[in-house]
Amino acid sequence: MGPGPSDVSDRVLSAMARPTIGHLDPSFIEMMDEIKTLLQYVFQTNNQLTFAVSAPGSAGMECCFANLIEPGDEVIVCQNGVFGGRMRENVERCGGSAIMVQDEWGSAVDPTKLEEALKQNPNAVIVAFVHAETSTGVQSDAKSLVRLAHEFDCITIVDTVTSLSGTPLFVDDWEIDAIYSGSQKCLSAPPGLSPVSFNERAAKKIRTRQTKVKSWFLDLNLVMNYWGGEGKRAYHHTAPVNCLYGLHESLVMVQEEGLEAAWKRHRDNHLRLYDGLDAMGIEFVVNKADRLPQLNAVSIPNGVDDMAIRSRLLEEFNLEIGAGLGTLAGKVWRIGLMGHASTPENVDFCISSLRSVL
Amino acid sequence: MGPGPSDVSDRVLSAMARPTIGHLDPSFIEMMDEIKTLLQYVFQTNNQLTFAVSAPGSAGMECCFANLIEPGDEVIVCQNGVFGGRMRENVERCGGSAIMVQDEWGSAVDPTKLEEALKQNPNAVIVAFVHAETSTGVQSDAKSLVRLAHEFDCITIVDTVTSLSGTPLFVDDWEIDAIYSGSQKCLSAPPGLSPVSFNERAAKKIRTRQTKVKSWFLDLNLVMNYWGGEGKRAYHHTAPVNCLYGLHESLVMVQEEGLEAAWKRHRDNHLRLYDGLDAMGIEFVVNKADRLPQLNAVSIPNGVDDMAIRSRLLEEFNLEIGAGLGTLAGKVWRIGLMGHASTPENVDFCISSLRSVL
Repeated sequence: MGPGPSDVSDRVLSAMARPTIGHLDPSFIEMMDEIKTLLQYVFQTNNQLTFAVSAPGSAGMECCFANLIEPGDEVIVCQNGVFGGRMRENVERCGGSAIMVQDEWGSAVDPTKLEEALKQNPNAVIVAFVHAETSTGVQSDAKSLVRLAHEFDCITIVDTVTSLSGTPLFVDDWEIDAIYSGSQKCLSAPPGLSPVSFNERAAKKIRTRQTKVKSWFLDLNLVMNYWGGEGKRAYHHTAPVNCLYGLHESLVMVQEEGLEAAWKRHRDNHLRLYDGLDAMGIEFVVNKADRLPQLNAVSIPNGVDDMAIRSRLLEEFNLEIGAGLGTLAGKVWRIGLMGHASTPENVDFCISSLRSVL
Repeated sequence: MGPGPSDVSDRVLSAMARPTIGHLDPSFIEMMDEIKTLLQYVFQTNNQLTFAVSAPGSAGMECCFANLIEPGDEVIVCQNGVFGGRMRENVERCGGSAIMVQDEWGSAVDPTKLEEALKQNPNAVIVAFVHAETSTGVQSDAKSLVRLAHEFDCITIVDTVTSLSGTPLFVDDWEIDAIYSGSQKCLSAPPGLSPVSFNERAAKKIRTRQTKVKSWFLDLNLVMNYWGGEGKRAYHHTAPVNCLYGLHESLVMVQEEGLEAAWKRHRDNHLRLYDGLDAMGIEFVVNKADRLPQLNAVSIPNGVDDMAIRSRLLEEFNLEIGAGLGTLAGKVWRIGLMGHASTPENVDFCISSLRSVL
């Protein structure tokens, strides 16, 4: 019950152990097609360019930035936690110039600050922000931020590593241009894959680049020939076959439950956790309206030893909860209720274990 | 029995299905330490900077090039197959200038050509070549090529994706500076991880870079803090936990058999395959002295339909053999005898199946 990887179901674990077959085997190609369709469902998009990057979420982030940014591009990055900082690193390493819009850690991205930055930087071509900040448990209003960016003719890159399938997200309806996520949060597949999706606006910017993408491994102009819809599959790299078995199974499970039901389950269990912690006097970091149901950042009570409590939870109860990151290190705990792990039983177990060690 | 991924043993598949735990869990960190020690064994090195990149072999290649090359660096690339061409792409995307030394596809890299190139390009700082070309089944004399490069004060990057654990390789003895491999060939773990190792000479070049590595995900100055020996493990990215379970188990199996025994087994089964194919009049592409035991490229007999035969092998015998790549497409088959799949039974099955469909 940390910030991810979340618990993986036996069904998905069993899928991981299926015999490894070739990445160009016709049966495997069929499964890749199914993964694409299932990812379109969880992203709520018809984007053709929807697939899983063969590496963890950080590589999915890099895939978006490396393909969309050309040297000299001005990119507005809204930062309200650790991962906005990583976005800045990506922009600069791609040769772009990052214009930072800062919000407090634990607060949602403020649309008025973004609007101000867009007005002051008329040459900006991209806006990037994190929908669900894993470091603080806050969610931002992605729909409004994207609409603002589009008013100023900017393409949007949105981090949904922690939100995908845990909280409402509509890629097409919200008109998100480029998006990445991770397999190991609310999808409850093992870590190692990063679902991504690009709309036609983003794909066009990639196809018409003046310079080559700095990464061969992540160059979508090449990767598209392997995952892509048109014609023959060309070998690009060796896909992580067994990880894709796991992701496929986890996506089938999301489809069986239904996205809306999964969102409701995450919300219900979050409220149950809130009630239990509130009764113990433990406070949430994020204000009520902006809390992520799947990642609950709470203040460590005064006088309590962070590391000692987390170690005892792990050793005595086999329960992992997350430490604070960056400026919140030592000040907060992060309790994950993600995907397969978001159950009333886990909520009750977490509360009783915490009560016991405190 | 294609060019990889190779067959994965039940033991390794079962390991893939172990419960996913956190990438910062103390038990997981212990396993990472063991993986490091086991990789040092299979690479035959004491290099501290030895670990598995969290993505397939192509990303391991990119990790070496992106960290070692700075814009403007002159890099000599010896090409004798597909993967030398990919090296060139990497050099250029890193802002380096690639000096190509070409050999025929199916021939080993010619040391005299490399020496000539080194003399003519006194500003070259890196020499890169493929030890075992998966596209042609040829192995080059890595020890001699590295010695030559060092005489001209160049750092070496060596691709051992297909050679590691299938054919003799001594990183320290041969003084290889930077090396990468893949999990899915002779180690017989599922694809998705790329073992790498860097000696102090390479590490120093990385630590003293004038410019930042273009990739945040692959920047060794950051990754080292997660895998590295010194002090506290810092979170960098979420490691592909279950894939690392699989790699760990596969490395334990190599250690149990012993590297020398594994090399001998690969060689014995290669000779058995040679005898069988020779009796059918099927010829090898590579001359005898330079053949890789684990990847056997043979000429498609005159008048035989490449695709039809491979499809029948797959459908009637559940047997995959590899197609030719690049200039060898349609002209050769590639028969893999890698890791767990290198057995006399597989050799005999392959020969009888081929005889049947031909």
